[in-house]
Order: sequence, then C-alpha cells, then structure tokens
Amino acid sequence: MVLSIIGKTLITEGILLVIPMLVGVGYSENNLMAFLVPALIALGIGFPLTLLRSRDRSIYIKEGFVIVALVWVFMSLIGALPFVISGEIPNYIDALFETVSGFTTTGASILTEVESLSKAIMFWRLFTHWIGGMGVLVFVLALIPGHNSGIMHVFRAESPGPTVGKLVSKLTYTARILYGIYLAMTVLEMLLLLIGGNTLYDSVLLSFTTAGTGGFGIKNTSAMDYSLYTQMVIAVFMFLFGINFNFYYLILIKCVGKAFKMEEVRWYFVMILTATLLIAINLISQVGNFIKALPLAFFQVTSISSTTGLATADFNNWPAFSQAILTILTIIGACGGSTGGGMKVARLGIFAKTTAADMRRLLRPKSITYAKFEGQVITPETERNVKAYFLLWVFIVVACTLILSLTYNDLYSNFSATLACIGNVGPGFSAVGPVQNYAFYSPLAKLLLSFVMLIGRLEIFPILVLFFPRTWKRL
Amino acid sequence: MVLSIIGKTLITEGILLVIPMLVGVGYSENNLMAFLVPALIALGIGFPLTLLRSRDRSIYIKEGFVIVALVWVFMSLIGALPFVISGEIPNYIDALFETVSGFTTTGASILTEVESLSKAIMFWRLFTHWIGGMGVLVFVLALIPGHNSGIMHVFRAESPGPTVGKLVSKLTYTARILYGIYLAMTVLEMLLLLIGGNTLYDSVLLSFTTAGTGGFGIKNTSAMDYSLYTQMVIAVFMFLFGINFNFYYLILIKCVGKAFKMEEVRWYFVMILTATLLIAINLISQVGNFIKALPLAFFQVTSISSTTGLATADFNNWPAFSQAILTILTIIGACGGSTGGGMKVARLGIFAKTTAADMRRLLRPKSITYAKFEGQVITPETERNVKAYFLLWVFIVVACTLILSLTYNDLYSNFSATLACIGNVGPGFSAVGPVQNYAFYSPLAKLLLSFVMLIGRLEIFPILVLFFPRTWKRL
Repeated sequence: MVLSIIGKTLITEGILLVIPMLVGVGYSENNLMAFLVPALIALGIGFPLTLLRSRDRSIYIKEGFVIVALVWVFMSLIGALPFVISGEIPNYIDALFETVSGFTTTGASILTEVESLSKAIMFWRLFTHWIGGMGVLVFVLALIPGHNSGIMHVFRAESPGPTVGKLVSKLTYTARILYGIYLAMTVLEMLLLLIGGNTLYDSVLLSFTTAGTGGFGIKNTSAMDYSLYTQMVIAVFMFLFGINFNFYYLILIKCVGKAFKMEEVRWYFVMILTATLLIAINLISQVGNFIKALPLAFFQVTSISSTTGLATADFNNWPAFSQAILTILTIIGACGGSTGGGMKVARLGIFAKTTAADMRRLLRPKSITYAKFEGQVITPETERNVKAYFLLWVFIVVACTLILSLTYNDLYSNFSATLACIGNVGPGFSAVGPVQNYAFYSPLAKLLLSFVMLIGRLEIFPILVLFFPRTWKRL
Repeated sequence: MVLSIIGKTLITEGILLVIPMLVGVGYSENNLMAFLVPALIALGIGFPLTLLRSRDRSIYIKEGFVIVALVWVFMSLIGALPFVISGEIPNYIDALFETVSGFTTTGASILTEVESLSKAIMFWRLFTHWIGGMGVLVFVLALIPGHNSGIMHVFRAESPGPTVGKLVSKLTYTARILYGIYLAMTVLEMLLLLIGGNTLYDSVLLSFTTAGTGGFGIKNTSAMDYSLYTQMVIAVFMFLFGINFNFYYLILIKCVGKAFKMEEVRWYFVMILTATLLIAINLISQVGNFIKALPLAFFQVTSISSTTGLATADFNNWPAFSQAILTILTIIGACGGSTGGGMKVARLGIFAKTTAADMRRLLRPKSITYAKFEGQVITPETERNVKAYFLLWVFIVVACTLILSLTYNDLYSNFSATLACIGNVGPGFSAVGPVQNYAFYSPLAKLLLSFVMLIGRLEIFPILVLFFPRTWKRL
C-alpha cells in the first residue's frame, strides 16, 4: 500500500516533467534529454510499484507519515536530475539542494547567477514551487478516486498546520476543491501580471513562485527591478496564498461571515498589518518618508510572513528593529492549510491559548478553564501535538545551527540560515541575506539544510518517524 | 502580612549595609555616609512596616509572588544608593542596573573600568551577589522563626527551579540548612584562594562572586590575569554552586548514593562534561593543543553553565561552534535549587520528558505512559507550570530584543544581551562580549535589562503577577 502510493506519485512526477520539456521544445532549446531521462526513470520506478498491491493493508498515522516522508525524498532525488543532466547545476548535491528548496517552497538558492539558466530549466525550477506548494500527494488524491479511509492520514501528514479537517465528506473532493482554488488563484495572478506588462513566461513563473510561497527569483535582483504595480500584485497574492484555504472554501460556499470569523485568519491579518506599520515607521529614517516606506514594508512583510522570501530591498541593511520583526515573522510563518511554511499562526495560537489557560489554573488552582480555538475546545491530543512540535523545533534549530557552525564560522548567519530553511522562507540575514545565496556552504551543510527544509515543510513528525527503528520493523 | 515581611527584609538589608561600611572604615576610606544613609533609610522604612500586622492573613501562592517581587524591587532601589551617594556611579539608573545585576547574580556591568572603585563600594558590589545568590528572603526565613505555613509560598517563589520541596519538615530549618551549606562552601573556597596566594580581600570577593554565581569581576580583565590555580579553584566552585543544593543536603545526611542518583545533577554533569570536551577540541585550532584548550574550555563552560559569567578568555573570538555551545548553556543555565540562573536543567528535563511521553501517545494513541522525573510522576500542575514558563520566556526574550533594537542598531548584540540578562549570566556576544560592558545602552535600555534580570532571577511568574490588575484589588 505504501509503495503503491509512492509509485503513483512518481508517475505523476514523470508526467509533470513533460511540461518543462515542452517549454524547452517551444523555445527550441537543446535540453530534451534533461527532462526525458528523469521522466522515464520516474515512470520506470513508479509503474512497477503501483502493481505491488499484495496485502491491501489499511493506513494508520504512522504509515501516513512514512508515505509522505518517502514521497518527498524520492521526488526530490529525481527532481534534481534535470539540473544535473542539463549541466546547468553540474553538482548533484547543489541540484538536490535547489530541488528540495523548490519543492518545499523555501526558495533558498545555491545559484550565484540565475538569469543565464535556460528557459526550460528555469521553468522546472519554479514549477517545483507550484507542485510543492499545495502538496504533491494532495494532487495525487485529487486525481485518483477510490482510496480507502486510511488515506486521510496521508493527507493530514502532508497538509500544513496543527489540525486538518476534511472540507467535505469525501477526501478526494476536498483535495479537488483545494487544487481548484489553488489553480484559479494562480491563473488570476498570472492575468494581473500580464496586464502589468510582464511577458507570458515571466507572468507564469512569477505566479508559480507566489502561489507556492516559494521565493525563487527569475532575476538576480529578486523582485527589486519590477514595476511598483507588479510588486504590489505579487505582495497581495503572497498575502492571499498565506491564508488558510478553508477561508476561501467558506467564501465559495457563501459563508463569508464565518470565513471572516476564522480566528487564525484574523490573527494573520492583525500580524501583517501591525508588522507592516511598525516596519514602515521604522524605515522612514532610511528612505525619507512614510509613503516610500509603506510599499517596501508591505512587500517584505507579506513575503516573509507567507514564507515566500522574495525581496524588493536588501533588508540586511534595514534597522535592527525591522530585522527583529522579520525574524519573528520567519519563525511564525503563515496560516495552517495555506501553501506557506513556518510554525503556523494556528499552532502558535493554540500554544498561547492553552498556556494562558494553564496560567489561570496556576494562579487559581480550583478554577476549571478550557482553552478554545476556532470556537472548539482544544483537545489534549492537539495540545500535546503542538507542544511536541514546539520542543522538537527548538531542538532541531539548535542542532542544525551547531553543526553548521562546524562548517562555517559565523554563528549569526548559521542561526539565520537554519531559521530561514526550517521556516521555508529562503533568505535570512548576514551571509544568507536577500542579495546573497547559499553557494558558500560546504556540501555537508547543503545536505543538512536540505534535510531541515524537508523537516520544516512536512512539520517534523513524518521525517522524525523515519528515524525510529520500530517504524521499519512494522512495515 | 505582605508589608510586614517586606519590612523585615529591609531591616536585614539595613544591617547588611553595615558590613561594607566597616570595610570602608577598616581601609580608612571616606565613604561612611554612602552606607549609613541607605542603611538608615532601609531601617526607617522597614521598622514601621513590621509593626503593621493588623489582620494576620495567611499567604497564598499569589501573595507569595507579590512579596518576593516587591522585596527584590525595594531592595534594589535602596541597594543602588551607596553607588550614587559615594559618587562612584553618579547616575542613579546606572547604579540601579549595577545593583539589580548584583542581586540577581547576573554580573552585567555598566562600568568601563572597575579597578578604581573604592574598597568599600567594591565590597558592596560583590556582596550583593552573595546576598542575592541564595535569596534574601530565604535569609530572613533562616533568621526569624515562627512563621505560619503560608510562608512556604514565599520560599517557593524565591527559590529557583520548577519544584521546591522542604528538606526537613520545618521550613525555617530548611532555610538554615541551605544557608549553612552556602556559607560553608563560600568559606572553603575563600581558604583555597588564600592558599593560592590571593589577598584576603580578593579571596573574600572572589568567593562572593563565585558563590552567588554572579560574575562581577574585581579586575578589568575579569578572571584572565589570575594564576591557573586560582582560575581552576574558581571554575570548580562555579561548577559546585551550580548544583542543586539538595545534593549537598543528601550528602550531609549520608545518603551519598541517593545524591548521585539525582537525575538533574546527572544531566548537569553530563552537560558540563560534553560541553567542555567539545569546546576544548574545537579550540585546538586556536590555541595549539588540547592541554592548553582544556582549562580554557572548562572555566568557560562552568562559568556560563552556572550563569556566573567570569571569563578567562575573550570567547567573542572563539569559533562559531564554541559560541553556539556557550549560547545554549546560557539558555539552559544551572540546576534548580542552586544559586545559578537560566531555565534550569530540571525544567528542561521535565519539558523534554513530558514531551517525549506526548510523542509516544501521539504515535500510539491507546498507550498510557507517564513521564517521571527524579523517580516521581510529573504532575499535570508541574507540567503546565513548566510549559507556561517556557512560552513566557520566549515572549519576554522576543519583546526585550525588539525594544532594545529601537535603542541600539545591532540585532545580534541585542538578542545576546537579552539572553545574558534573562539567564543572569552577564556577558554575551558581539557588543556585550566578555571584554565589553553594558555602558553603551541608553538609560531606557538599561532599565529594561534590569527588569529582565529580575524576571530571570525570580523566574517570571512573581514579576508577571504584579502586572495583573486583579492582584492589586485583592491585597
């Protein structure tokens, strides 16, 4: 069962690889083989796996975790091949870093110069953001009906956020609705970018990087050279893609009031608004006036909050206060159920609310208080889950920073790189700032950071489960 | 009742102020008034307060918090006066920072040059470490018998660590035993320092700074210029004062086996050993060989772990890996029930163990597992307490770093200063490194950091309770 789903996903990847190949053909580029070979490998491994369906075992939480983790690892291993075969990123570890960064929608790059990439490779590079944004397994679920109920655990394991509910009774429909919203919003952004005078190619690719909240740029200067209109379209869509997709579903079924009552969305609005205003005011001393500062602040806040990571300014040179706010946003991240990364607003909300209830009980031991989120009492299970996530997050950040420090001698940069990678943001501060890149790290450090990006995207538990010996005994 | 205890503590401080005054007289220094005036103020406020005992109300958790918080604030406000009156720290805010840093055993200084201080003022400066180390209320409890049972809450609120038990049935005896151990160990260190050729004055003051795990130096170069013997005596005692005092009590009552089975102490041993070895190996490239690196690593690890903050090297120039380890040690801190600060090993142990149990339940929802610490099942109350502490700690660190960033434009230094102050360590990295000081911060920033030191020493809740409007209504 596990292998069968992995097989279906690899077949999907094989088919998706045809799209950049066609782009290459369209632009008469000479890189057909770069996509054909990996596509054939994906299909070659994928097909036999789908045929293995000896014991149709049901899927439990742990199997869900394992499937998701393995799918993402295999997908990245194959997805890196076009870069290597085309020779545009000759080193496989570099290519793997770039691919993982793409699929996890991190947007951290090892490329010091991106504008010389061929059209097809560039398309694949940004297409990985779009594929990874909503999740490739959700995509598979949307296409293929007739899964058993255990598949819910796969869906839960891949979807970001502390709690995931089905929108409608059938999971396949939920997956279709999500991908429908995702596709529609991507197309809408593309049209708006076209209206702004961008080429079709640029509009598509910018939509990919925004929709997946990825952050790979198609220019060496990230988003700095675009017109204010284009920048603002991107900013608004980064903001929109950072919202919990349940919000759009509620609007679609005409429950607008209910949509705007979503606690997580409200907190996200308040966070973006507050951060934008504070940074804009803080930037006045650097750029002259509030009117100039506001778009810079808005773009950067939406970019970091949604964990996209595009930049219209080198925020490495911003005042410390603005940098502190951006660092906090890097850690918090976007809403659960969005395409963004980070800890998720909902998770922090649950942690804060249960802790507030704990505090009340601490001061008045006899009082009985229940913490609620989104109108529902937070279950002990959710609370435990969130708390475990939190401690593991701290542990992984500390461990990664420590190991990175053995390879590169700047603690602050290493810490910032770790935060930017586990939060799937991309750029950080100091040596990994928005006009820098990750090329200077050693191969070992790049592998470690790729691993941390996966941990961040899959929200720790699926990857962690792979390291329990007991997991492998049971499969 | 609240005011009566505050009164008693102020009287104690008034009497303690006589000691540095006598030192001044002994060295025929001209600073009699600098101690006499504050001593009279302390007695003048303290005596009337002890007479107010209208309604002998019992003390609950919240009252315990309020008493401890207010005592520490008043004590610091008066303790700063000698510095101002003597003119050696003319600015009151600077003096307050230095005093809070002293009582909280942080050891962060605003003095750019300390060797020109008079003997009496220097004595008071380091004596505050010794007074604050074990806690002034514990001292009051040790002296004055006949309190009601509610006084336990005062003791709990002042003593560091997640759980505090009485050693013996009567709290007054527990307090006396603790202060007895504290005094005996201080005297032992003093004797060993005297044997090492240090003057009596230096030996006493170095014992104060070590015993309180404070970190104020009596030389401009911290501990760099002392002999290796003196450095190692200090290092060993910093290590010893960072251990939970229950350990010594168990040894005193001849339960040596039980003492060495204390989980927290074992973890602390392992932490110190691991960190020392890792840093020593990491330093080989800088200092040449392991034999030279080992004492440097051992001193710095015990100094930071115990949250003392003395330095035998400018660890600002150490490799990033060593810096990362020192930062982690700054956050973890010493054992609960020691004179050290930080989060405490026990608190992190409880957080880690309950989270591990949560994880097990997450993967196997039907299993029932209890987390144990020191052989006892961790109660939900303790777990809630620790979790609340953790979140509040993060919140305070973030808020303090943000506000500091408005006053000084270096995010990394501000973050490091916040960690060093809330952990009561003293020196951090970058602008607040071991050969730097806190003089450059604005008065507002100094007040904020003083406040954060108090929050760190009293472990958040007592100070926090002061900000609940309801607290004041009830008193």
